[in-house]
Amino acid sequence: MDAGLFTANNVWMMLATALVFFMHTGFAFLEIGLTRQKNTINILFKNIFIITVGLLLYYAWGFNMMYPGFEEGSSGIFGFAGFGIAAPEGGMTPDYADGGYTWWTDFLFQGMFAATAATIVSGAVAERIKIGSFMIFTVVYVGLVYPIVGAWKWGGGFLDSWGFYDFAGSTLVHSVGGWAALVAIFLLGSRVGKFDENGKPKAIPGHNIPLATAGVLILWLGWFGFNGGSVLSADPELTSLVLVTTSLAAAAGGVGAFILSTILYKNMDLTMFLNGILGGLVGITAGADLMSPNEAVIIGFVAGLIIVLGVAFIDKLKLDDPVGAVTVHLITGIWGTLAVGLFGDKAGAGQFMTQLYGVLIVGVFCIVCSFIILGALKAIMGLRVSKEEEVEGLDLHEHGMDAYPDFTND
Amino acid sequence: MDAGLFTANNVWMMLATALVFFMHTGFAFLEIGLTRQKNTINILFKNIFIITVGLLLYYAWGFNMMYPGFEEGSSGIFGFAGFGIAAPEGGMTPDYADGGYTWWTDFLFQGMFAATAATIVSGAVAERIKIGSFMIFTVVYVGLVYPIVGAWKWGGGFLDSWGFYDFAGSTLVHSVGGWAALVAIFLLGSRVGKFDENGKPKAIPGHNIPLATAGVLILWLGWFGFNGGSVLSADPELTSLVLVTTSLAAAAGGVGAFILSTILYKNMDLTMFLNGILGGLVGITAGADLMSPNEAVIIGFVAGLIIVLGVAFIDKLKLDDPVGAVTVHLITGIWGTLAVGLFGDKAGAGQFMTQLYGVLIVGVFCIVCSFIILGALKAIMGLRVSKEEEVEGLDLHEHGMDAYPDFTND
Amino acid sequence: MDAGLFTANNVWMMLATALVFFMHTGFAFLEIGLTRQKNTINILFKNIFIITVGLLLYYAWGFNMMYPGFEEGSSGIFGFAGFGIAAPEGGMTPDYADGGYTWWTDFLFQGMFAATAATIVSGAVAERIKIGSFMIFTVVYVGLVYPIVGAWKWGGGFLDSWGFYDFAGSTLVHSVGGWAALVAIFLLGSRVGKFDENGKPKAIPGHNIPLATAGVLILWLGWFGFNGGSVLSADPELTSLVLVTTSLAAAAGGVGAFILSTILYKNMDLTMFLNGILGGLVGITAGADLMSPNEAVIIGFVAGLIIVLGVAFIDKLKLDDPVGAVTVHLITGIWGTLAVGLFGDKAGAGQFMTQLYGVLIVGVFCIVCSFIILGALKAIMGLRVSKEEEVEGLDLHEHGMDAYPDFTND
Repeated sequence: MDAGLFTANNVWMMLATALVFFMHTGFAFLEIGLTRQKNTINILFKNIFIITVGLLLYYAWGFNMMYPGFEEGSSGIFGFAGFGIAAPEGGMTPDYADGGYTWWTDFLFQGMFAATAATIVSGAVAERIKIGSFMIFTVVYVGLVYPIVGAWKWGGGFLDSWGFYDFAGSTLVHSVGGWAALVAIFLLGSRVGKFDENGKPKAIPGHNIPLATAGVLILWLGWFGFNGGSVLSADPELTSLVLVTTSLAAAAGGVGAFILSTILYKNMDLTMFLNGILGGLVGITAGADLMSPNEAVIIGFVAGLIIVLGVAFIDKLKLDDPVGAVTVHLITGIWGTLAVGLFGDKAGAGQFMTQLYGVLIVGVFCIVCSFIILGALKAIMGLRVSKEEEVEGLDLHEHGMDAYPDFTND
Repeated sequence: MDAGLFTANNVWMMLATALVFFMHTGFAFLEIGLTRQKNTINILFKNIFIITVGLLLYYAWGFNMMYPGFEEGSSGIFGFAGFGIAAPEGGMTPDYADGGYTWWTDFLFQGMFAATAATIVSGAVAERIKIGSFMIFTVVYVGLVYPIVGAWKWGGGFLDSWGFYDFAGSTLVHSVGGWAALVAIFLLGSRVGKFDENGKPKAIPGHNIPLATAGVLILWLGWFGFNGGSVLSADPELTSLVLVTTSLAAAAGGVGAFILSTILYKNMDLTMFLNGILGGLVGITAGADLMSPNEAVIIGFVAGLIIVLGVAFIDKLKLDDPVGAVTVHLITGIWGTLAVGLFGDKAGAGQFMTQLYGVLIVGVFCIVCSFIILGALKAIMGLRVSKEEEVEGLDLHEHGMDAYPDFTND
Repeated sequence: MDAGLFTANNVWMMLATALVFFMHTGFAFLEIGLTRQKNTINILFKNIFIITVGLLLYYAWGFNMMYPGFEEGSSGIFGFAGFGIAAPEGGMTPDYADGGYTWWTDFLFQGMFAATAATIVSGAVAERIKIGSFMIFTVVYVGLVYPIVGAWKWGGGFLDSWGFYDFAGSTLVHSVGGWAALVAIFLLGSRVGKFDENGKPKAIPGHNIPLATAGVLILWLGWFGFNGGSVLSADPELTSLVLVTTSLAAAAGGVGAFILSTILYKNMDLTMFLNGILGGLVGITAGADLMSPNEAVIIGFVAGLIIVLGVAFIDKLKLDDPVGAVTVHLITGIWGTLAVGLFGDKAGAGQFMTQLYGVLIVGVFCIVCSFIILGALKAIMGLRVSKEEEVEGLDLHEHGMDAYPDFTND
């Protein structure tokens, strides 16, 4: 491969990495925007913790656990290539990864993905989880569960051998985070005031909708790198197709959620519109490289409908998910993974069943792991802050700070 | 063309697309920042609607209406290459577009531009337009007017044959939005309290100046893609020249507006400084590839002066433009278009007259279309919310939400 | 060099330029976030002034003062290649700068760096400096001091001949800003209320921690371009190594500051975490291309510890630095510069001493220049606003505006 093509490929992958990193700003804005101001510092702290510690864990062992280089005849369930990220022979040449990028770029791009799983959980458990418990959970989940599951498919493990397909992580990233979020909100219980004495859900409005909106736009932008970079080179046809399918699905997801929520609730609900966009993005992620633009619009639109129904369904279950993380990342993550069997270049009954097996296997593993980790934390140190702390806000009690001391009313 | 060059070109164009997409975050921040908090949700909603629906319309037919492939001998006024965005033969190879990018990239880059026209209007009509009327207007204007005008020049239509020049859209994007903004604020009337009983304008301060400032910086950043991508390849000389002229014009525009407004009003007015930057950016857009750095500084500086005078002039006309959109996008858009005849590689009396004709023709068409669309909406369903709704805020009445429920005074 | 490689290089450098430009949004968010709302407009105004005027000064003469093309036998202390930025013969071809970028890209990339020095000062002097004095200081410091010091190393001057190494500006950018910040806060004195009658420091909490947090994340993102672009080409191995060392140092810096501040103060202090990230970034900047990932983690982690100790030390000195700029940019800038002699490809006693000389020479020059400029301004027009103005806020007195008129309590 000539130097120009190798360099152009690597430039694309580095900038995709930068865009995925920027998604953490988007997640932070979205999560604080959709929750109350009294817990803002706490959420930001969790996000900053996840980004920094997540990257260091991935450097310490995660990368080599996710890409262990399974040998022929291995069961493809678990492998480990050693601590640290020493570059292999030829890791900086076009011999590595078909010239799509260097070993360093590979590590950093994947490292930026790693923290995302815990970030998804962060939103769901907001406003009531103990910071210490959350930090321990994050270390174990990002440090072990995420790379083990990732190895099954992206590391060349057994799901890959079966033909399971997940282009950029509807399952491997979003559902992995989403399953943990589901278990966590089940174990934590709902926030004070979320359900009235009759079990009817009450809206707890987010305190900064401009930042939430910006968060969604930044996430969409970041998805240019999340999906576009998952081509693992700058191949002009494939990368540009992926950007088109990704953006069309995002737009269609927003419009789908807007239309259905307007019909159901007679209200132009900005939050639903925003979550619909995210749903479209998560939904297209598993097959962004397989779909035509028309199929992307359908997948995104359906994801938008799912968002509206999913949020209502989670409420029905008496679960409290302040930012809609389970709906956005888990339910549309499942939809996107299954959609690979329904639409696009790989559509077919066999593929659909393989996708379904993949969803189930990952789901069972994540649920079991989450129950073990969070259950142990609950037994040992507790998951939830005191009621007084919850009512007065985690910022005051856990951090001794106020996010906006000059203009809050309290 | 070798694969390295084609790939590098396409990488640049994809990232330019991402930057133009990010401009929508900038517009959202700017518009809400310069208006009152009680209308924040409404403005964000409009922006999100524009981005998603605008992209879908461009996918449905806009792209093929803007680039219809006028045949020899066609009048070059209207054409249509069919619904959808099926890629042509060779659309993913260097045979397409001189190897500057793929068909998919072409669509997405242009699609990101499309929504901008309506976004410009959104700012001008803020705080008083009915959401339903705005949405219908957007669909028609972005779906039909924008691509038809675009086809006249960028689609190879009659303005292109005449030699009219508009590198990245001082006229085709900014003025197209600006003319509609002008018609809209004329039909809508001014906000309650904008003019006192003697017709003297009163400042209605924006509620979040940090976000407005960030919006302008994000727009400047986005202009790296807006103008830089309009080279339609990554040609090193031309793209880097365009970034230099664009940034210098932005800086000079800000300084020009700062100096003049400080002289006139004895006040270090941040808003004028910010709008001056935007004026410089809009002003350089028509000829960013034709100008030397020195010429870019002059064009930008003059644009900055125009901003200060233009805002006062719009006030004089008793028109109410909350974010200064008409001045920023229309008046400096005209200035930038005419500047192509005054400075740079194409300067000359003939070119100046052609530019002037282009401005006038586009202006007449946009004014007529805007009057028809908005006039019909006014007659059928009304353009403006009730006085009570306007005073209490559109967020409450149209969306049932508050943008910052935890720390607003009301 | 083939066109593909040249184009890919230039694309990388243009996008690095865009990312460095975006850092100004990060700085603005960080500075306003960590200060009080009554001075928000003032800080934003200073930032916008710096960006625009800084770029114009660099265009007018700064670029040619920083890269004067010292002749053989020159003392390498001062040179000047003339006003403006007329491109040299071959400046747009691969003959220029080993094909890493064009002359235009070169100017713009360096121009984006130039304003940073003054921005660092802006944070330190916030909430009490006269806007007029600050503007004059900025013009002189960015217009003269910064390019002169830069020429000593990056322009091929005497520090370069000595073998002093500063990859992306731990000294040339961050310390240059940091020294001026130190002198400025010494001359200005502390804010009203910062120290009680016994000289004990009191925390003055920042008013918008979400924006401060976003600011740090945006700065980290911008550092992808700041350090990544300082490779001056898109060399796949070197650019990707630099991104890895930069991000690992940032993460380790955050974690280091988090651990130490939690031990010392028994408080999960988000601000310390954030400043630790910045410390890691500044610390790695001098040798980002020389370090292994492991060394980057060490350098970053130590920088994080330095942040916590440095902030306490500045307080001990009764100096008032609202955003911690001296600690972040100067102290960890020195650490990073010296670390080049302790770790990585150039480590050694000789290199360490050269680094130390460089730090001292730049320090003495910047201190002397800052005292002269700021001392003169203090004598002639005063540096500090009146006590009344400080208490009521600079926004009201200097700008006649309120940053958030709709929801502040005062």
